[in-house]
Amino acid sequence: MQRSDLINYFRRVRQTTEDICQPLEIEDHVIQPITDVSPPKWHLGHTSWFYEAIFLDKHIDNYQPYHPQYAYVFNSYYESLGVRVDRNHRGYLSRPTVKEALQYRGYITDRMCELIESVDEAKWPEFSKLLVLAANHEQQHQELLVTDIKYILAVNPLLPGYLEESPAAVKSRSGQLPNTEFLHFEGGDYDIGYQGEEFYYDNERPVHKVRLDDFKLQNRLITNREYLEFIEDGGYKDFRYWLSDAWETVRTEGWKAPLYWRKIDGDWYEFTMSGLQKLNPEAPLCHVSYYEADAFAQWANKRLPTEAEWEVAARLSGVESDGANFFDTQNLHPVPLSTATGQSKQNLHQMLGDVWEWTGSAYLPYPGYRKAEGPLGEYNGKFMVNQMVLRGGCCATPRDHIRLSYRNFFYPDACWPFAGFCLARTTA
Amino acid sequence: MQRSDLINYFRRVRQTTEDICQPLEIEDHVIQPITDVSPPKWHLGHTSWFYEAIFLDKHIDNYQPYHPQYAYVFNSYYESLGVRVDRNHRGYLSRPTVKEALQYRGYITDRMCELIESVDEAKWPEFSKLLVLAANHEQQHQELLVTDIKYILAVNPLLPGYLEESPAAVKSRSGQLPNTEFLHFEGGDYDIGYQGEEFYYDNERPVHKVRLDDFKLQNRLITNREYLEFIEDGGYKDFRYWLSDAWETVRTEGWKAPLYWRKIDGDWYEFTMSGLQKLNPEAPLCHVSYYEADAFAQWANKRLPTEAEWEVAARLSGVESDGANFFDTQNLHPVPLSTATGQSKQNLHQMLGDVWEWTGSAYLPYPGYRKAEGPLGEYNGKFMVNQMVLRGGCCATPRDHIRLSYRNFFYPDACWPFAGFCLARTTA
Amino acid sequence: MQRSDLINYFRRVRQTTEDICQPLEIEDHVIQPITDVSPPKWHLGHTSWFYEAIFLDKHIDNYQPYHPQYAYVFNSYYESLGVRVDRNHRGYLSRPTVKEALQYRGYITDRMCELIESVDEAKWPEFSKLLVLAANHEQQHQELLVTDIKYILAVNPLLPGYLEESPAAVKSRSGQLPNTEFLHFEGGDYDIGYQGEEFYYDNERPVHKVRLDDFKLQNRLITNREYLEFIEDGGYKDFRYWLSDAWETVRTEGWKAPLYWRKIDGDWYEFTMSGLQKLNPEAPLCHVSYYEADAFAQWANKRLPTEAEWEVAARLSGVESDGANFFDTQNLHPVPLSTATGQSKQNLHQMLGDVWEWTGSAYLPYPGYRKAEGPLGEYNGKFMVNQMVLRGGCCATPRDHIRLSYRNFFYPDACWPFAGFCLARTTA
Amino acid sequence: MQRSDLINYFRRVRQTTEDICQPLEIEDHVIQPITDVSPPKWHLGHTSWFYEAIFLDKHIDNYQPYHPQYAYVFNSYYESLGVRVDRNHRGYLSRPTVKEALQYRGYITDRMCELIESVDEAKWPEFSKLLVLAANHEQQHQELLVTDIKYILAVNPLLPGYLEESPAAVKSRSGQLPNTEFLHFEGGDYDIGYQGEEFYYDNERPVHKVRLDDFKLQNRLITNREYLEFIEDGGYKDFRYWLSDAWETVRTEGWKAPLYWRKIDGDWYEFTMSGLQKLNPEAPLCHVSYYEADAFAQWANKRLPTEAEWEVAARLSGVESDGANFFDTQNLHPVPLSTATGQSKQNLHQMLGDVWEWTGSAYLPYPGYRKAEGPLGEYNGKFMVNQMVLRGGCCATPRDHIRLSYRNFFYPDACWPFAGFCLARTTA
Repeated sequence: MQRSDLINYFRRVRQTTEDICQPLEIEDHVIQPITDVSPPKWHLGHTSWFYEAIFLDKHIDNYQPYHPQYAYVFNSYYESLGVRVDRNHRGYLSRPTVKEALQYRGYITDRMCELIESVDEAKWPEFSKLLVLAANHEQQHQELLVTDIKYILAVNPLLPGYLEESPAAVKSRSGQLPNTEFLHFEGGDYDIGYQGEEFYYDNERPVHKVRLDDFKLQNRLITNREYLEFIEDGGYKDFRYWLSDAWETVRTEGWKAPLYWRKIDGDWYEFTMSGLQKLNPEAPLCHVSYYEADAFAQWANKRLPTEAEWEVAARLSGVESDGANFFDTQNLHPVPLSTATGQSKQNLHQMLGDVWEWTGSAYLPYPGYRKAEGPLGEYNGKFMVNQMVLRGGCCATPRDHIRLSYRNFFYPDACWPFAGFCLARTTA
Repeated sequence: MQRSDLINYFRRVRQTTEDICQPLEIEDHVIQPITDVSPPKWHLGHTSWFYEAIFLDKHIDNYQPYHPQYAYVFNSYYESLGVRVDRNHRGYLSRPTVKEALQYRGYITDRMCELIESVDEAKWPEFSKLLVLAANHEQQHQELLVTDIKYILAVNPLLPGYLEESPAAVKSRSGQLPNTEFLHFEGGDYDIGYQGEEFYYDNERPVHKVRLDDFKLQNRLITNREYLEFIEDGGYKDFRYWLSDAWETVRTEGWKAPLYWRKIDGDWYEFTMSGLQKLNPEAPLCHVSYYEADAFAQWANKRLPTEAEWEVAARLSGVESDGANFFDTQNLHPVPLSTATGQSKQNLHQMLGDVWEWTGSAYLPYPGYRKAEGPLGEYNGKFMVNQMVLRGGCCATPRDHIRLSYRNFFYPDACWPFAGFCLARTTA
Repeated sequence: MQRSDLINYFRRVRQTTEDICQPLEIEDHVIQPITDVSPPKWHLGHTSWFYEAIFLDKHIDNYQPYHPQYAYVFNSYYESLGVRVDRNHRGYLSRPTVKEALQYRGYITDRMCELIESVDEAKWPEFSKLLVLAANHEQQHQELLVTDIKYILAVNPLLPGYLEESPAAVKSRSGQLPNTEFLHFEGGDYDIGYQGEEFYYDNERPVHKVRLDDFKLQNRLITNREYLEFIEDGGYKDFRYWLSDAWETVRTEGWKAPLYWRKIDGDWYEFTMSGLQKLNPEAPLCHVSYYEADAFAQWANKRLPTEAEWEVAARLSGVESDGANFFDTQNLHPVPLSTATGQSKQNLHQMLGDVWEWTGSAYLPYPGYRKAEGPLGEYNGKFMVNQMVLRGGCCATPRDHIRLSYRNFFYPDACWPFAGFCLARTTA
Repeated sequence: MQRSDLINYFRRVRQTTEDICQPLEIEDHVIQPITDVSPPKWHLGHTSWFYEAIFLDKHIDNYQPYHPQYAYVFNSYYESLGVRVDRNHRGYLSRPTVKEALQYRGYITDRMCELIESVDEAKWPEFSKLLVLAANHEQQHQELLVTDIKYILAVNPLLPGYLEESPAAVKSRSGQLPNTEFLHFEGGDYDIGYQGEEFYYDNERPVHKVRLDDFKLQNRLITNREYLEFIEDGGYKDFRYWLSDAWETVRTEGWKAPLYWRKIDGDWYEFTMSGLQKLNPEAPLCHVSYYEADAFAQWANKRLPTEAEWEVAARLSGVESDGANFFDTQNLHPVPLSTATGQSKQNLHQMLGDVWEWTGSAYLPYPGYRKAEGPLGEYNGKFMVNQMVLRGGCCATPRDHIRLSYRNFFYPDACWPFAGFCLARTTA
């Protein structure tokens, strides 16, 4: 990549982060209602500190940190980069202010652009590769920002909206979708993992063969209407559908419906980025945990696809990101499959965008995976236990951030991400 | 009181609350780093909702609440006034914004002034009495505001100050104070409780007789220098000085010094409203718990005075609030006793202002006390267990809020209030 | 006391402890279902270790402990006597076995008797005084043994009894008691504290004057019938009767009735030392906390007596321990006041024995109290915060252990002791 | 299987359970020092109730339970078989006594033998199959009994032994083992899962193909000596070796060495079934968690094998259970590989017996797995999340209970099972 192209790309990523926070009140930037949800102000600072720690501090002689305490305040989990505020204490910090965090951002953006222009030609290949990684890191925080902002607004009894009103695509109600189809895929030995020449995360490699039996995959996402049937059939009250750890969670947390659903006077509503809205039955189900996805699958006498099945099916079906409902559409909510599309039956729908899709695969290293040395080694590898893989990105993911080989991961009880699922079947 | 006088008084109280928040950043208004510390924004709203619930809603026909959710958001603990946000979730609310909370304040202030002018003459005596109570309630929140703001700034790694710089009175270092004296008071049957005609809280009554033996009371507050001796003598490491519950707290919380003390490179510092400052050895000790006060007393082979001894000694000595270091001085920190005053030896110093003084008395009803019906019954009476009495007000207490009979109370492990102590001795 | 008398007394106390455990299964000796309830095996060992640490180790040259680990296993809370098993881990220890613990007891009893005979005449006065204290310590553990055994059996779904069947005195149902009377006592300056020449605990001294106003005290204990009225009137559902900390406990613990009450098919039962029994409405209420006692008093528009009122009333009324329902009766349950006695109206009933009576006094040092040096200083003084005073002993207290000046203390939420209450009134 | 053979087999299994408890004191049967460790008495009862619930209650008309409360007391986690004592409250139950639990066992054994003889021929195939499953269930509890007994004795400060003394095989110290070898295995498509005709658990099926790359597997278990190197190299202090969740556990639990290791005066000891013993450096490492196994692998720049690699390597190498160190040897501890065996280099050692071997595979259903209806459906399937697979059995596993396809599973922080590991490498 040319230096000027990289500067443009870098500045665009930086700007997007700030754009996301633009509709917020200052007060919205500060709070952390649960440990998983970081204050937006922290995201603003963290994504600046990251460049400071990884680039400026390494490439500039006698670099003086912008502020001596910011490394402590804005480090997330990088043990190799020093001590830091406890993760669940990020909401206890009123300073630096939002204004100061934005000044910090501006300073870092400018210094980084100077550095991009001035770094030695000899270091350029490695430097530019690392910078693309860092920009992808910032894009992940863009998605987290949207996800966390939604939670911050949803816990508020005033139920404030982030968008002025719901985009048309979100509201469309074109009649009930026809029943879903299960598409057939042949078993065999398939290559899995990233095989291109562009950026990828280390957890997408090595490319390796997996053996799949024949399987069938649902041609679209599970909808709110379908999930409502599960609820109305007593799904949250019957232990038989739930994994043991899941049932424990249902009981101790008192789960009775997806995170953002509310039943008011007999009608179901859903908290969205446009505030509380009547539940759209044809829209894809969103904000469920792995536990809920798996329980629904048990109830439906099906199962979740493995991550390998997901990737193979997507690749064989020629799934592409064009036209998918990513962050760039600014819907910030999954959109119903149009009846026309649904009836075409020719292909796999909604694999990319809308909602992350839970798979039945644990997040583990691919065969032959070795984590990197230094702070980048803390990026993916150290999380490879206790979490489940999700695929396909969501309506809060930047379009140019995702790939078919992209592996996201969350604990199986997480329900604040934009996550849903489709089902699979083994063909006997 | 005249209606116009009450309006002036009321408006002055309202203004003071807002003045306290004026130096804050918006971000400082939002956070709740521990359950005891409420967000300043919440104090702003709560002290408005209180008038709405107690006055506007009762006296105005078909009164429409300013906002249907504010009662839920801003109720503190009044069971009789409905459900409310969990006390430890106040820091999870970004809305209403500070600006909206201030607009709410303005609206309530204006409606209240209209009501003060228009209320029936027949209702006036009761109304005006209740309004003075409500204004005193707001004054208590003014003190809490200062106290909570200090905590919010102190947990921040950037250690921001609230005041531009320390007032001169706080910084004065006039050489080491002479040793303290213990003044002698005769035993006997004394009347305790509020005996005047002005405002008082119900917990200061009934006036009743107590029997005291002869006792001696220290003529001034314990200083930082004296407490440092206790620390350096291993006070925090020797179980013998501590009550059993206290020792458990010392161990589980890792207490090693008062809450806001920091040892840096061998020197002691103290976080103050002007940021981190070198510890002034002659200044009164501040921000210690009952547990620490009692342990110091054990170490010194003395005891804390009872609340009756405190009140009797103060009254016999003619203690007055003029000249005491209250909120009105804007020192916002206890000030050293001047050597001149200290040497005069003629009297009891620092009984009012500077720091609340822990007594050895549990907070219990006076003989014959009955709590009121309705929400006012929840004001004092329901807290009469598990807490200890403090007397005398502090540098964050408005001067016209305090009386010699005033009973404050905190749990014995509380160290975030401006609290210190003086010692007493029984004369054998 | 003569040496031989002391040996007899000492052996009798030792034997009683073992007698209490005699009806138990070995398995009953081992468990600790809540932190407050120690395994009976631990009581057996602790009351032996106490003599070893306080006497044998001090008076016998080169004394070798019976077992090097028993000090660690059987120390309760004496910081000055070394480290020990965490209090809430006592139920994690299967060894030493019950048999070994009893062998340890036998050894200690014999060595102590040798020591009693052989100790220097010069040391005798102090030695014998301390031994009486240690025997009283063991008597306190006898009461705790009964109390803890009851809890251990009550949590068991098989509801095993300790006694073969209920003693007749417990079962008597002589018709409904007449309404209670409130007896009048004159106010004035009274001496409080232990004034005799026999054994007493340090917390009963110094004798000192207190000033009392006129008061009225109920002539007997509150009964199950009376408490049932409170329950049926919604007592556990109405915040107005409860202290703030109490209401929090009611909600988080889900309290709906006294600890050992069970409602089965519309009838009330009570777990007793004879297993589950139909609730006897005329029997004194038992196993309530201070929170419940105070809530009942609020509901009844009365209050609890202070400890000074209790002691003065008992003394003025000539209350004696003869005939009271102590451990020695082996009822192990409070017994109904006989209608005959109740109708005599001439005096104060049930002040001693049956149930400990909660007072409205916090457990604090008497004026001039100083705790002793060394381990005995840890006996009473270090608990003087956060607890409430109870008076009068109960049906699990040895008769020769109690005095009118005896001060017991528990946290206000404790309901596993044999505790009830009577009411008082201030005369306006 | 013949009815008489099944009776013999069944009675042998029953007897073995009782034999395991024979060396215990009654007190050892009662306690539950951590939630994972059940009281031996509970195991005795649970393995009786299981037959009652699954067989007697289904096959005998109007069957009256042995005791109406035992289902409540002895159910483990079968939601379909009713409510039960909280899992972490099993140590709060002193009754039924050990004697009563053994009487219950005898009754159930006899009734079951009657039923085995009398059940309809038509029901025999299904009945006998289910009975073998139930006997295998009891064998699992035999291993748990040994595992839990070890923990119960280890937490005791008296450190009592279960065996009189260490078996010779455990103590053997034949000089330092030569370095380990990594054996090479060819990649390819392999069948995984149980392919025989005997008993198996449902989680070992369906048999299915997996694709493996070439890999190398260590020819024996990691020894204490090797793990000590990791410790001495600062393994427990360097975050870089640990998964993120693992590092959190290390810090909050204060892990510094394997569960049963103790450093005393500079020497390492290990708690064994024969009490505290000097650490045998050549013995296989035991009682480590997945977190520790994975950290060691990271430090050694290797990895754990997957469960498929383990099964393929064991099958290709002709691993057999004869001669392996199972429960039947009564060593109850892993034994050092003899130097002779170690030097032969011809094969894979210690795959079966000694210690369970952690694999790098999450416990998930095999492709096409469906859990059964009813209580048996709760046996394996509902645990398929958040746990890791272990293979090969251990010195507490009955020899006739294990198979190469056997899948055990524990949470990754579990260290109380007899678990160790060997390493694998990917061949680049």
